[in-house]
Amino acid sequence: MSKDGWTQAPGEILREEGFRLDTVDPDGTPGYEGDKAAGDKELESRREVLGELQERLFAASRTGEAEDAVLLVLQAMDSAGKGGIVRHVVGGVDPQGVELAAFKAPTEEELAHDFLWRIEKRLPRPGFIGVFDRSHYEDVLIARVHGLADEAEIERRYDAIVDFERRIAASGIRVVKVMLHISRDEQRDRLMERLDRSDKHWKYNPGDVDERRRWDEYMAAYEMAIERTSTPETPWHVIPANHKWYARLAVQELLIDALEDIDPPWPKADFDVEAEKKRLAAS
Amino acid sequence: MSKDGWTQAPGEILREEGFRLDTVDPDGTPGYEGDKAAGDKELESRREVLGELQERLFAASRTGEAEDAVLLVLQAMDSAGKGGIVRHVVGGVDPQGVELAAFKAPTEEELAHDFLWRIEKRLPRPGFIGVFDRSHYEDVLIARVHGLADEAEIERRYDAIVDFERRIAASGIRVVKVMLHISRDEQRDRLMERLDRSDKHWKYNPGDVDERRRWDEYMAAYEMAIERTSTPETPWHVIPANHKWYARLAVQELLIDALEDIDPPWPKADFDVEAEKKRLAAS
Repeated sequence: MSKDGWTQAPGEILREEGFRLDTVDPDGTPGYEGDKAAGDKELESRREVLGELQERLFAASRTGEAEDAVLLVLQAMDSAGKGGIVRHVVGGVDPQGVELAAFKAPTEEELAHDFLWRIEKRLPRPGFIGVFDRSHYEDVLIARVHGLADEAEIERRYDAIVDFERRIAASGIRVVKVMLHISRDEQRDRLMERLDRSDKHWKYNPGDVDERRRWDEYMAAYEMAIERTSTPETPWHVIPANHKWYARLAVQELLIDALEDIDPPWPKADFDVEAEKKRLAAS
Repeated sequence: MSKDGWTQAPGEILREEGFRLDTVDPDGTPGYEGDKAAGDKELESRREVLGELQERLFAASRTGEAEDAVLLVLQAMDSAGKGGIVRHVVGGVDPQGVELAAFKAPTEEELAHDFLWRIEKRLPRPGFIGVFDRSHYEDVLIARVHGLADEAEIERRYDAIVDFERRIAASGIRVVKVMLHISRDEQRDRLMERLDRSDKHWKYNPGDVDERRRWDEYMAAYEMAIERTSTPETPWHVIPANHKWYARLAVQELLIDALEDIDPPWPKADFDVEAEKKRLAAS
């Protein structure tokens, strides 16, 4: 590992197959031996690396030389830090190269279609980093916990997700699936802070407590979903998120990994550079 | 003025009505007496102000308390720095609150509709800052220079734009129209740099030189468009842009002005805060 502080690549250590949620300590910082100060510094210094890779991805797609894209799928319980990832990690790259989609409760039109219909429409174009703030996984998470679909339908969806993600991966989209994992106590503290501060009230919803009461059911639904949909092409990463700085750093590295895997070249000029210099000078 | 360096509010000094382009020096830094170092520092320090205002705008719209949005319209000749504005000014706020639209040559479907059809679809929702990288103004700029529409049609479009912008302004969208104004020599230098650096070749297009040869026609088309579509509700701002740092700083202030004009309040809780604290503590 060339990056300060990491003792093991986050892409390896956080990858989940055959998943047991209780094996992940939400307080942990697996693979990283630095503290918050070191982590914040590293986040800052790696921003430039991520930014250049993103620019190369964007550039390569402009000239039709590359069909690749990256899709970051963010799933988590309320207050786990999805917004902070978007702001502090994704916010570090050129907004022109990012396509963000936040999936809320489906509309009537969306419900009339299969659950992947609205997802397909928001897939990133070549050259872009797509970010899903919640995703098709809600259809096997909240849907399971609240019984919005029966067992057979949930089973069908797991298989449909695997097929769907295999197809989009084959089409050139690197899918980076992330669950931000906080503890139940940490969530209480974070929700309490939203109640304590009047400039945070807008982020609080009484329904958050109702969902929180089903914590164990959600964890079981996550465990099942991760177990059933982690594949070698599109593995899940469960990221301990009680330490926000660690979660941000880990997601940043996962994005860098995905882009380095693509390794987009700077496009070659499809014009005669010297001739253009003469034309330009004369203009 | 409370901001260091500004001697006059950019919202006043850069506003154009009855416009003569030759009165604007592309090398100028009107209203600002600091140098590049001071300007860069100010850009950084004002980022937090812009960020908080944007968060308040977003928050107010979440709870249905506000219908307001901001729309930044960016127009300029090639290489004038639209991308840098997006990256360094817009990139300073939370990506979740930004809706970016880059308008390229219209598709066949778009051409089959009136020119404002594709624009309407990309207007920002309440709570968002929309950014148009090029816009409906191309339909009276490139369209005039290349004769893609006849004189009567261009005339119709000026009026249509004024009506359209009046309507969206009345619906709650603060429209901030910006022309980044560089000199012809500065453009040559910037395009030459793209030819000199292999990691910039992808940004160069031989067609850029063809457009450049019509510089005076473009300037006349801008002058006419600005003259015809600057209104008290939706004025144009012509920003000298040979100094990138100045242009970024000026656009940042215009966005801050627009948001301060809205002055979105932190939403009041629509629930009983103390009761929720008890529910949460017990959960």
